[in-house]
Amino acid sequence: MSGFLHVVGLGPGAGDLRAPRATEALARASDIVGYASYLARVPERSAQLRHASDNRDEISRARHALSLAAAGRRVAVVSSGDAGVFAMASAVFEAIEHGDPAWRALDVEIVPGISAMFAAAARIGAPLGHDFCAMSLSDNLKPWPTVLARLRAVAAAGFTVALYNPRSRARPWQLAAAFDLLRTILPRGTCVAMATAVSSADERIEITSLAEADPSRADMRTLVLIGSAATRRIERADGGLWLYAPRGAPA
Amino acid sequence: MSGFLHVVGLGPGAGDLRAPRATEALARASDIVGYASYLARVPERSAQLRHASDNRDEISRARHALSLAAAGRRVAVVSSGDAGVFAMASAVFEAIEHGDPAWRALDVEIVPGISAMFAAAARIGAPLGHDFCAMSLSDNLKPWPTVLARLRAVAAAGFTVALYNPRSRARPWQLAAAFDLLRTILPRGTCVAMATAVSSADERIEITSLAEADPSRADMRTLVLIGSAATRRIERADGGLWLYAPRGAPA
Repeated sequence: MSGFLHVVGLGPGAGDLRAPRATEALARASDIVGYASYLARVPERSAQLRHASDNRDEISRARHALSLAAAGRRVAVVSSGDAGVFAMASAVFEAIEHGDPAWRALDVEIVPGISAMFAAAARIGAPLGHDFCAMSLSDNLKPWPTVLARLRAVAAAGFTVALYNPRSRARPWQLAAAFDLLRTILPRGTCVAMATAVSSADERIEITSLAEADPSRADMRTLVLIGSAATRRIERADGGLWLYAPRGAPA
Repeated sequence: MSGFLHVVGLGPGAGDLRAPRATEALARASDIVGYASYLARVPERSAQLRHASDNRDEISRARHALSLAAAGRRVAVVSSGDAGVFAMASAVFEAIEHGDPAWRALDVEIVPGISAMFAAAARIGAPLGHDFCAMSLSDNLKPWPTVLARLRAVAAAGFTVALYNPRSRARPWQLAAAFDLLRTILPRGTCVAMATAVSSADERIEITSLAEADPSRADMRTLVLIGSAATRRIERADGGLWLYAPRGAPA
Protein backbone atom coordinates (compact mmCIF):
# COMPACT_ATOMS: atom_id res chain seq x y z
CA MET A 1 0.00 0.00 0.00
CA SER A 2 1.53 3.27 -1.10
CA GLY A 3 -0.43 5.80 0.96
CA PHE A 4 1.08 7.95 3.62
CA LEU A 5 -0.51 9.50 6.68
CA HIS A 6 1.12 12.21 8.75
CA VAL A 7 -0.56 13.35 11.95
CA VAL A 8 0.90 16.80 12.46
CA GLY A 9 1.00 18.97 15.58
CA LEU A 10 0.77 22.61 14.51
CA GLY A 11 2.04 23.95 17.85
CA PRO A 12 0.12 26.31 20.11
CA GLY A 13 -0.54 29.15 17.68
CA ALA A 14 2.52 31.26 16.89
CA GLY A 15 4.17 30.31 13.61
CA ASP A 16 7.67 30.34 15.12
CA LEU A 17 6.64 27.65 17.60
CA ARG A 18 5.90 25.15 14.81
CA ALA A 19 8.63 22.55 14.21
CA PRO A 20 10.27 22.60 10.76
CA ARG A 21 9.35 18.91 10.38
CA ALA A 22 5.67 19.84 10.68
CA THR A 23 6.01 22.66 8.16
CA GLU A 24 7.72 20.27 5.75
CA ALA A 25 5.08 17.54 6.18
CA LEU A 26 2.33 20.08 5.45
CA ALA A 27 4.12 21.36 2.36
CA ARG A 28 4.48 17.85 0.92
CA ALA A 29 0.92 16.64 1.58
CA SER A 30 -1.52 16.11 -1.29
CA ASP A 31 -4.46 16.35 1.16
CA ILE A 32 -4.88 18.14 4.47
CA VAL A 33 -7.61 17.02 6.83
CA GLY A 34 -8.64 18.85 9.97
CA TYR A 35 -10.95 21.03 11.96
CA ALA A 36 -11.59 24.19 9.95
CA SER A 37 -9.97 26.59 12.41
CA TYR A 38 -6.76 24.52 12.43
CA LEU A 39 -6.71 24.30 8.61
CA ALA A 40 -6.81 28.10 8.60
CA ARG A 41 -3.37 28.02 10.22
CA VAL A 42 -1.84 26.06 7.31
CA PRO A 43 -0.52 28.08 4.33
CA GLU A 44 -2.57 27.31 1.19
CA ARG A 45 -0.97 25.60 -1.79
CA SER A 46 -2.67 25.42 -5.15
CA ALA A 47 -2.17 21.71 -5.84
CA GLN A 48 -3.33 20.67 -2.40
CA LEU A 49 -6.82 19.48 -1.40
CA ARG A 50 -8.18 20.67 1.93
CA HIS A 51 -10.84 18.72 3.82
CA ALA A 52 -12.32 20.85 6.58
CA SER A 53 -14.58 19.32 9.19
CA ASP A 54 -16.28 20.49 12.32
CA ASN A 55 -14.63 19.57 15.61
CA ARG A 56 -17.13 17.03 16.85
CA ASP A 57 -16.54 13.74 15.15
CA GLU A 58 -12.85 12.91 15.41
CA ILE A 59 -13.32 9.27 14.41
CA SER A 60 -15.11 10.14 11.15
CA ARG A 61 -12.34 12.59 10.36
CA ALA A 62 -9.70 9.94 11.10
CA ARG A 63 -11.49 7.36 8.92
CA HIS A 64 -11.74 9.83 6.08
CA ALA A 65 -8.01 10.55 6.30
CA LEU A 66 -7.15 6.84 6.41
CA SER A 67 -9.35 6.14 3.36
CA LEU A 68 -7.57 8.86 1.40
CA ALA A 69 -4.18 7.47 2.40
CA ALA A 70 -5.28 3.93 1.50
CA ALA A 71 -6.21 5.26 -1.95
CA GLY A 72 -2.60 6.36 -2.39
CA ARG A 73 -2.83 10.00 -1.31
CA ARG A 74 -0.24 11.71 0.86
CA VAL A 75 -2.38 12.92 3.76
CA ALA A 76 -1.67 15.23 6.67
CA VAL A 77 -4.15 15.33 9.55
CA VAL A 78 -3.63 18.46 11.61
CA SER A 79 -4.07 19.09 15.32
CA SER A 80 -3.30 22.10 17.44
CA GLY A 81 -0.42 21.78 19.92
CA ASP A 82 1.02 18.27 19.98
CA ALA A 83 -0.89 15.74 17.86
CA GLY A 84 -0.54 13.08 20.54
CA VAL A 85 -2.01 15.04 23.49
CA PHE A 86 -5.84 15.08 23.64
CA ALA A 87 -5.73 15.37 19.86
CA MET A 88 -6.01 13.50 16.57
CA ALA A 89 -3.32 10.81 16.95
CA SER A 90 -5.41 8.73 19.36
CA ALA A 91 -8.45 9.02 17.10
CA VAL A 92 -6.39 7.83 14.12
CA PHE A 93 -5.18 4.73 15.97
CA GLU A 94 -8.66 4.06 17.32
CA ALA A 95 -9.93 4.15 13.74
CA ILE A 96 -7.13 1.85 12.58
CA GLU A 97 -7.77 -0.69 15.33
CA HIS A 98 -11.46 -0.98 14.53
CA GLY A 99 -11.27 -0.31 10.78
CA ASP A 100 -10.13 -1.86 7.49
CA PRO A 101 -7.26 -4.33 8.21
CA ALA A 102 -5.41 -2.88 5.21
CA TRP A 103 -4.91 0.35 7.18
CA ARG A 104 -2.37 -1.49 9.35
CA ALA A 105 -0.05 -1.50 6.34
CA LEU A 106 -0.15 2.28 5.89
CA ASP A 107 2.91 4.38 6.53
CA VAL A 108 1.74 6.42 9.55
CA GLU A 109 3.97 9.08 11.07
CA ILE A 110 3.15 11.27 14.05
CA VAL A 111 4.93 14.63 13.93
CA PRO A 112 5.12 15.96 17.49
CA GLY A 113 4.61 19.60 18.33
CA ILE A 114 4.88 22.10 21.16
CA SER A 115 1.85 21.43 23.33
CA ALA A 116 -0.50 24.15 24.55
CA MET A 117 0.38 23.11 28.09
CA PHE A 118 4.10 23.78 27.70
CA ALA A 119 3.54 27.01 25.80
CA ALA A 120 1.26 28.18 28.62
CA ALA A 121 3.75 27.12 31.27
CA ALA A 122 6.52 29.05 29.51
CA ARG A 123 4.45 32.26 29.67
CA ILE A 124 3.82 31.79 33.39
CA GLY A 125 7.27 30.70 34.58
CA ALA A 126 7.94 27.02 35.17
CA PRO A 127 4.79 25.65 36.84
CA LEU A 128 5.26 22.21 35.22
CA GLY A 129 8.92 21.97 36.23
CA HIS A 130 8.38 18.98 38.48
CA ASP A 131 5.94 16.04 38.68
CA PHE A 132 2.71 16.92 36.92
CA CYS A 133 -0.39 15.45 35.27
CA ALA A 134 -2.36 16.41 32.21
CA MET A 135 -6.01 15.49 32.19
CA SER A 136 -9.12 16.30 30.25
CA LEU A 137 -12.03 17.70 32.24
CA SER A 138 -14.46 16.62 29.54
CA ASP A 139 -16.98 13.98 30.54
CA ASN A 140 -18.06 13.34 26.95
CA LEU A 141 -16.09 10.08 26.77
CA LYS A 142 -15.28 9.51 30.44
CA PRO A 143 -17.71 9.21 33.37
CA TRP A 144 -17.69 12.29 35.60
CA PRO A 145 -16.95 10.21 38.76
CA THR A 146 -13.76 9.00 37.02
CA VAL A 147 -12.76 12.62 36.34
CA LEU A 148 -13.24 13.48 40.02
CA ALA A 149 -11.43 10.37 41.26
CA ARG A 150 -8.41 11.15 39.08
CA LEU A 151 -8.34 14.78 40.13
CA ARG A 152 -8.52 13.79 43.79
CA ALA A 153 -5.71 11.24 43.40
CA VAL A 154 -3.22 13.55 41.75
CA ALA A 155 -3.95 16.63 43.86
CA ALA A 156 -3.58 14.61 47.07
CA ALA A 157 -0.32 13.09 45.81
CA GLY A 158 1.30 16.50 45.16
CA PHE A 159 1.20 16.73 41.37
CA THR A 160 0.69 19.98 39.51
CA VAL A 161 -2.33 19.53 37.23
CA ALA A 162 -2.89 20.82 33.70
CA LEU A 163 -6.59 20.68 32.79
CA TYR A 164 -7.49 20.41 29.12
CA ASN A 165 -11.06 21.07 27.88
CA PRO A 166 -12.01 22.85 31.11
CA ARG A 167 -15.23 24.45 29.92
CA SER A 168 -17.49 24.82 26.90
CA ARG A 169 -21.05 25.87 26.17
CA ALA A 170 -22.11 22.22 26.41
CA ARG A 171 -20.11 21.64 29.63
CA PRO A 172 -20.61 24.80 31.70
CA TRP A 173 -20.46 23.49 35.31
CA GLN A 174 -17.60 20.98 35.43
CA LEU A 175 -14.76 23.42 36.13
CA ALA A 176 -16.57 24.92 39.14
CA ALA A 177 -17.16 21.40 40.47
CA ALA A 178 -13.47 20.59 39.98
CA PHE A 179 -12.44 23.74 41.90
CA ASP A 180 -14.87 22.81 44.68
CA LEU A 181 -13.30 19.37 45.00
CA LEU A 182 -9.77 20.75 44.94
CA ARG A 183 -10.57 23.25 47.72
CA THR A 184 -11.23 20.27 50.00
CA ILE A 185 -7.72 18.88 49.30
CA LEU A 186 -5.32 21.76 48.65
CA PRO A 187 -4.62 24.98 50.59
CA ARG A 188 -6.87 27.83 49.47
CA GLY A 189 -3.80 29.87 48.53
CA THR A 190 -2.66 27.24 45.99
CA CYS A 191 -1.60 28.92 42.74
CA VAL A 192 -3.97 28.65 39.78
CA ALA A 193 -3.28 29.98 36.29
CA MET A 194 -5.71 30.26 33.40
CA ALA A 195 -4.05 30.61 30.02
CA THR A 196 -6.29 31.31 27.04
CA ALA A 197 -5.30 31.25 23.36
CA VAL A 198 -1.63 31.00 24.28
CA SER A 199 0.86 32.49 21.82
CA SER A 200 -1.90 33.89 19.60
CA ALA A 201 -2.86 37.55 19.22
CA ASP A 202 -5.63 37.34 21.84
CA GLU A 203 -3.58 35.50 24.46
CA ARG A 204 -4.80 36.09 28.03
CA ILE A 205 -2.93 34.83 31.11
CA GLU A 206 -4.48 35.15 34.54
CA ILE A 207 -2.78 34.10 37.76
CA THR A 208 -4.94 33.64 40.82
CA SER A 209 -5.45 31.31 43.78
CA LEU A 210 -7.64 28.30 44.31
CA ALA A 211 -9.80 30.35 46.71
CA GLU A 212 -10.44 33.04 44.09
CA ALA A 213 -10.36 31.08 40.84
CA ASP A 214 -13.37 32.06 38.71
CA PRO A 215 -14.52 29.28 36.34
CA SER A 216 -16.30 31.78 34.09
CA ARG A 217 -12.89 33.08 32.95
CA ALA A 218 -12.26 29.80 31.08
CA ASP A 219 -13.50 28.67 27.67
CA MET A 220 -12.54 25.98 25.13
CA ARG A 221 -9.26 27.73 24.33
CA THR A 222 -8.20 27.86 27.99
CA LEU A 223 -5.71 25.65 29.75
CA VAL A 224 -6.08 25.67 33.54
CA LEU A 225 -2.98 24.97 35.61
CA ILE A 226 -3.41 24.10 39.27
CA GLY A 227 -0.28 24.19 41.37
CA SER A 228 0.63 21.89 44.21
CA ALA A 229 1.33 23.01 47.76
CA ALA A 230 4.98 23.28 46.66
CA THR A 231 4.36 25.74 43.80
CA ARG A 232 6.14 29.06 44.40
CA ARG A 233 5.15 32.60 43.42
CA ILE A 234 7.82 35.23 42.67
CA GLU A 235 6.98 38.92 42.51
CA ARG A 236 8.71 40.55 39.58
CA ALA A 237 10.07 44.06 39.76
CA ASP A 238 7.38 45.23 37.28
CA GLY A 239 4.59 43.98 39.55
CA GLY A 240 3.93 40.79 37.60
CA LEU A 241 4.26 37.27 38.90
CA TRP A 242 6.15 34.15 37.96
CA LEU A 243 5.01 30.73 39.16
CA TYR A 244 7.37 27.78 39.30
CA ALA A 245 7.61 24.26 40.67
CA PRO A 246 10.78 23.68 42.67
CA ARG A 247 12.89 20.81 41.33
CA GLY A 248 12.24 18.44 44.24
CA ALA A 249 9.81 17.73 47.03
CA PRO A 250 10.39 18.34 50.74
CA ALA A 251 11.13 15.38 53.02
CA MET B 1 18.47 46.63 34.03
CA SER B 2 19.20 45.86 30.39
CA GLY B 3 20.08 42.17 30.54
CA PHE B 4 18.09 39.48 28.87
CA LEU B 5 17.76 35.81 29.75
CA HIS B 6 16.25 33.22 27.44
CA VAL B 7 15.75 29.69 28.71
CA VAL B 8 15.61 27.67 25.51
CA GLY B 9 14.31 24.15 24.90
CA LEU B 10 16.39 22.54 22.14
CA GLY B 11 13.84 19.82 21.41
CA PRO B 12 14.51 16.10 21.69
CA GLY B 13 17.50 15.81 19.37
CA ALA B 14 16.65 16.10 15.68
CA GLY B 15 17.28 19.55 14.26
CA ASP B 16 13.92 19.68 12.47
CA LEU B 17 12.09 19.27 15.77
CA ARG B 18 13.53 22.53 17.15
CA ALA B 19 11.17 25.51 17.03
CA PRO B 20 12.28 28.48 14.88
CA ARG B 21 11.86 30.71 17.96
CA ALA B 22 14.51 28.66 19.76
CA THR B 23 16.86 28.79 16.78
CA GLU B 24 16.41 32.57 16.62
CA ALA B 25 17.01 33.05 20.36
CA LEU B 26 20.23 31.04 20.13
CA ALA B 27 21.44 33.03 17.11
CA ARG B 28 20.89 36.35 18.90
CA ALA B 29 22.51 35.42 22.24
CA SER B 30 25.84 36.91 23.28
CA ASP B 31 26.38 34.05 25.76
CA ILE B 32 25.16 30.47 25.79
CA VAL B 33 25.13 28.56 29.07
CA GLY B 34 24.46 24.86 29.40
CA TYR B 35 25.51 21.32 29.97
CA ALA B 36 28.34 20.53 27.53
CA SER B 37 26.48 17.86 25.57
CA TYR B 38 23.55 20.24 24.98
CA LEU B 39 25.87 23.07 23.92
CA ALA B 40 27.26 20.69 21.31
CA ARG B 41 23.81 20.79 19.65
CA VAL B 42 23.97 24.58 19.16
CA PRO B 43 25.67 25.87 15.98
CA GLU B 44 28.82 27.85 16.87
CA ARG B 45 29.03 31.58 16.12
CA SER B 46 32.29 33.45 16.28
CA ALA B 47 31.11 36.43 18.36
CA GLN B 48 29.34 34.24 20.90
CA LEU B 49 30.70 33.08 24.26
CA ARG B 50 29.91 29.52 25.34
CA HIS B 51 29.85 28.50 29.00
CA ALA B 52 29.84 24.71 29.32
CA SER B 53 29.19 23.06 32.65
CA ASP B 54 28.75 19.54 33.88
CA ASN B 55 25.21 18.35 34.47
CA ARG B 56 25.26 18.21 38.25
CA ASP B 57 24.81 21.67 39.64
CA GLU B 58 21.84 23.28 37.95
CA ILE B 59 21.53 26.09 40.49
CA SER B 60 25.15 27.22 40.02
CA ARG B 61 24.59 27.21 36.29
CA ALA B 62 21.40 29.25 36.69
CA ARG B 63 23.12 31.77 38.98
CA HIS B 64 25.97 32.14 36.51
CA ALA B 65 23.53 32.82 33.69
CA LEU B 66 21.59 35.35 35.79
CA SER B 67 24.81 37.16 36.74
CA LEU B 68 25.78 37.46 33.09
CA ALA B 69 22.31 38.80 32.20
CA ALA B 70 22.44 41.26 35.11
CA ALA B 71 25.75 42.53 33.72
CA GLY B 72 23.93 43.40 30.49
CA ARG B 73 24.63 40.31 28.42
CA ARG B 74 22.04 38.61 26.23
CA VAL B 75 22.10 35.08 27.64
CA ALA B 76 20.55 31.83 26.46
CA VAL B 77 20.44 28.90 28.87
CA VAL B 78 19.85 25.67 26.97
CA SER B 79 17.98 22.52 27.98
CA SER B 80 17.13 19.42 26.00
CA GLY B 81 13.45 18.87 25.15
CA ASP B 82 11.21 21.51 26.70
CA ALA B 83 13.02 23.92 29.06
CA GLY B 84 10.15 23.80 31.54
CA VAL B 85 9.94 20.00 32.02
CA PHE B 86 12.48 18.58 34.49
CA ALA B 87 14.93 21.07 33.03
CA MET B 88 16.58 24.46 33.52
CA ALA B 89 13.56 26.79 33.80
CA SER B 90 12.74 25.67 37.35
CA ALA B 91 16.38 26.04 38.39
CA VAL B 92 16.47 29.58 36.99
CA PHE B 93 13.38 30.63 38.96
CA GLU B 94 14.67 28.90 42.08
CA ALA B 95 17.88 30.92 41.72
CA ILE B 96 15.91 34.14 41.18
CA GLU B 97 13.70 33.58 44.23
CA HIS B 98 16.65 33.03 46.54
CA GLY B 99 19.14 35.33 44.81
CA ASP B 100 19.93 38.99 44.13
CA PRO B 101 16.65 41.00 44.26
CA ALA B 102 17.84 42.85 41.14
CA TRP B 103 17.33 39.63 39.17
CA ARG B 104 13.56 40.14 39.49
CA ALA B 105 13.90 43.04 37.07
CA LEU B 106 15.54 40.96 34.34
CA ASP B 107 13.75 40.26 31.10
CA VAL B 108 13.32 36.47 31.35
CA GLU B 109 11.72 34.52 28.53
CA ILE B 110 11.15 30.78 28.44
CA VAL B 111 11.15 29.38 24.90
CA PRO B 112 9.20 26.11 24.93
CA GLY B 113 10.27 23.06 22.96
CA ILE B 114 9.12 19.62 21.92
CA SER B 115 9.58 17.47 24.99
CA ALA B 116 11.36 14.09 24.96
CA MET B 117 8.12 12.58 26.23
CA PHE B 118 6.04 13.72 23.25
CA ALA B 119 8.75 12.84 20.74
CA ALA B 120 8.92 9.35 22.26
CA ALA B 121 5.15 8.99 22.24
CA ALA B 122 5.05 9.99 18.57
CA ARG B 123 7.46 7.16 17.68
CA ILE B 124 5.34 4.63 19.56
CA GLY B 125 1.83 5.66 18.48
CA ALA B 126 -0.27 7.78 20.83
CA PRO B 127 0.37 6.36 24.31
CA LEU B 128 -0.11 9.82 25.92
CA GLY B 129 -3.34 10.51 24.07
CA HIS B 130 -5.45 10.61 27.21
CA ASP B 131 -4.91 11.46 30.92
CA PHE B 132 -1.24 11.03 31.82
CA CYS B 133 1.42 12.03 34.33
CA ALA B 134 5.07 12.91 33.98
CA MET B 135 7.27 12.25 36.96
CA SER B 136 10.92 12.03 37.77
CA LEU B 137 12.12 8.77 39.27
CA SER B 138 15.15 10.51 40.76
CA ASP B 139 15.34 10.58 44.54
CA ASN B 140 18.14 13.12 44.57
CA LEU B 141 15.81 15.97 45.55
CA LYS B 142 12.69 14.02 46.57
CA PRO B 143 12.37 11.30 49.23
CA TRP B 144 11.98 7.83 47.76
CA PRO B 145 8.73 7.17 49.71
CA THR B 146 7.26 10.24 47.97
CA VAL B 147 8.24 8.81 44.58
CA LEU B 148 6.52 5.51 45.41
CA ALA B 149 3.41 7.20 46.82
CA ARG B 150 3.00 9.30 43.68
CA LEU B 151 3.53 6.32 41.39
CA ARG B 152 0.97 4.31 43.34
CA ALA B 153 -1.59 7.13 43.22
CA VAL B 154 -1.43 7.70 39.47
CA ALA B 155 -1.24 4.06 38.43
CA ALA B 156 -4.23 3.19 40.61
CA ALA B 157 -6.19 6.15 39.20
CA GLY B 158 -5.72 5.02 35.59
CA PHE B 159 -3.13 7.51 34.29
CA THR B 160 -0.48 6.61 31.77
CA VAL B 161 2.90 7.45 33.31
CA ALA B 162 6.00 8.93 31.69
CA LEU B 163 9.06 8.39 33.87
CA TYR B 164 11.94 10.83 33.49
CA ASN B 165 15.40 10.05 34.94
CA PRO B 166 14.59 6.35 35.30
CA ARG B 167 18.12 5.09 35.87
CA SER B 168 21.73 6.21 36.12
CA ARG B 169 25.01 4.85 37.44
CA ALA B 170 24.32 6.57 40.76
CA ARG B 171 20.68 5.36 40.89
CA PRO B 172 20.80 1.75 39.63
CA TRP B 173 17.93 0.11 41.56
CA GLN B 174 15.02 2.56 41.53
CA LEU B 175 13.46 1.53 38.21
CA ALA B 176 13.29 -2.14 39.25
CA ALA B 177 11.62 -1.10 42.51
CA ALA B 178 9.13 1.03 40.56
CA PHE B 179 8.26 -1.92 38.28
CA ASP B 180 7.84 -4.13 41.36
CA LEU B 181 5.38 -1.67 42.86
CA LEU B 182 3.47 -1.26 39.61
CA ARG B 183 3.10 -5.05 39.23
CA THR B 184 1.06 -5.02 42.45
CA ILE B 185 -1.36 -2.45 40.96
CA LEU B 186 -1.60 -3.00 37.20
CA PRO B 187 -2.21 -6.12 35.08
CA ARG B 188 1.04 -7.87 34.17
CA GLY B 189 0.23 -7.44 30.49
CA THR B 190 0.16 -3.63 30.82
CA CYS B 191 2.09 -2.02 27.95
CA VAL B 192 5.52 -0.58 28.75
CA ALA B 193 7.75 1.27 26.30
CA MET B 194 11.35 2.32 26.76
CA ALA B 195 12.51 5.04 24.41
CA THR B 196 16.19 5.90 24.44
CA ALA B 197 17.86 8.87 22.69
CA VAL B 198 14.65 9.65 20.81
CA SER B 199 15.04 11.31 17.39
CA SER B 200 18.84 11.05 17.50
CA ALA B 201 21.00 8.69 15.42
CA ASP B 202 21.13 6.04 18.14
CA GLU B 203 17.43 6.05 18.95
CA ARG B 204 16.17 2.77 20.42
CA ILE B 205 12.48 2.02 21.06
CA GLU B 206 11.46 -1.13 22.89
CA ILE B 207 7.87 -2.15 23.54
CA THR B 208 7.24 -4.75 26.19
CA SER B 209 4.89 -5.56 29.06
CA LEU B 210 5.02 -4.81 32.75
CA ALA B 211 5.67 -8.52 33.43
CA GLU B 212 8.72 -8.57 31.15
CA ALA B 213 10.07 -5.03 31.46
CA ASP B 214 13.83 -5.18 32.04
CA PRO B 215 15.18 -2.18 34.00
CA SER B 216 18.71 -2.76 32.69
CA ARG B 217 17.56 -1.59 29.23
CA ALA B 218 17.19 1.97 30.57
CA ASP B 219 19.82 4.65 31.08
CA MET B 220 19.89 8.43 31.58
CA ARG B 221 18.73 9.03 28.00
CA THR B 222 15.71 6.75 28.38
CA LEU B 223 12.12 7.73 28.88
CA VAL B 224 9.95 4.94 30.28
CA LEU B 225 6.26 4.98 29.40
CA ILE B 226 3.89 2.82 31.43
CA GLY B 227 0.44 2.35 30.01
CA SER B 228 -2.80 2.08 31.92
CA ALA B 229 -5.18 -0.86 31.78
CA ALA B 230 -6.88 1.01 28.91
CA THR B 231 -3.78 1.27 26.70
CA ARG B 232 -4.23 -0.60 23.41
CA ARG B 233 -1.72 -2.46 21.26
CA ILE B 234 -2.15 -2.65 17.46
CA GLU B 235 -0.20 -5.13 15.35
CA ARG B 236 1.05 -3.50 12.19
CA ALA B 237 1.21 -5.35 8.89
CA ASP B 238 5.03 -5.26 9.06
CA GLY B 239 5.07 -7.05 12.42
CA GLY B 240 5.69 -3.90 14.47
CA LEU B 241 3.42 -2.51 17.14
CA TRP B 242 1.63 0.74 17.83
CA LEU B 243 0.47 1.65 21.32
CA TYR B 244 -2.24 4.20 21.93
CA ALA B 245 -4.50 5.51 24.67
CA PRO B 246 -8.18 5.56 23.68
CA ARG B 247 -9.74 9.02 23.93
CA GLY B 248 -11.97 8.22 26.88
CA ALA B 249 -12.33 5.89 29.80
CA PRO B 250 -14.91 3.11 30.16
CA ALA B 251 -17.87 3.62 32.48
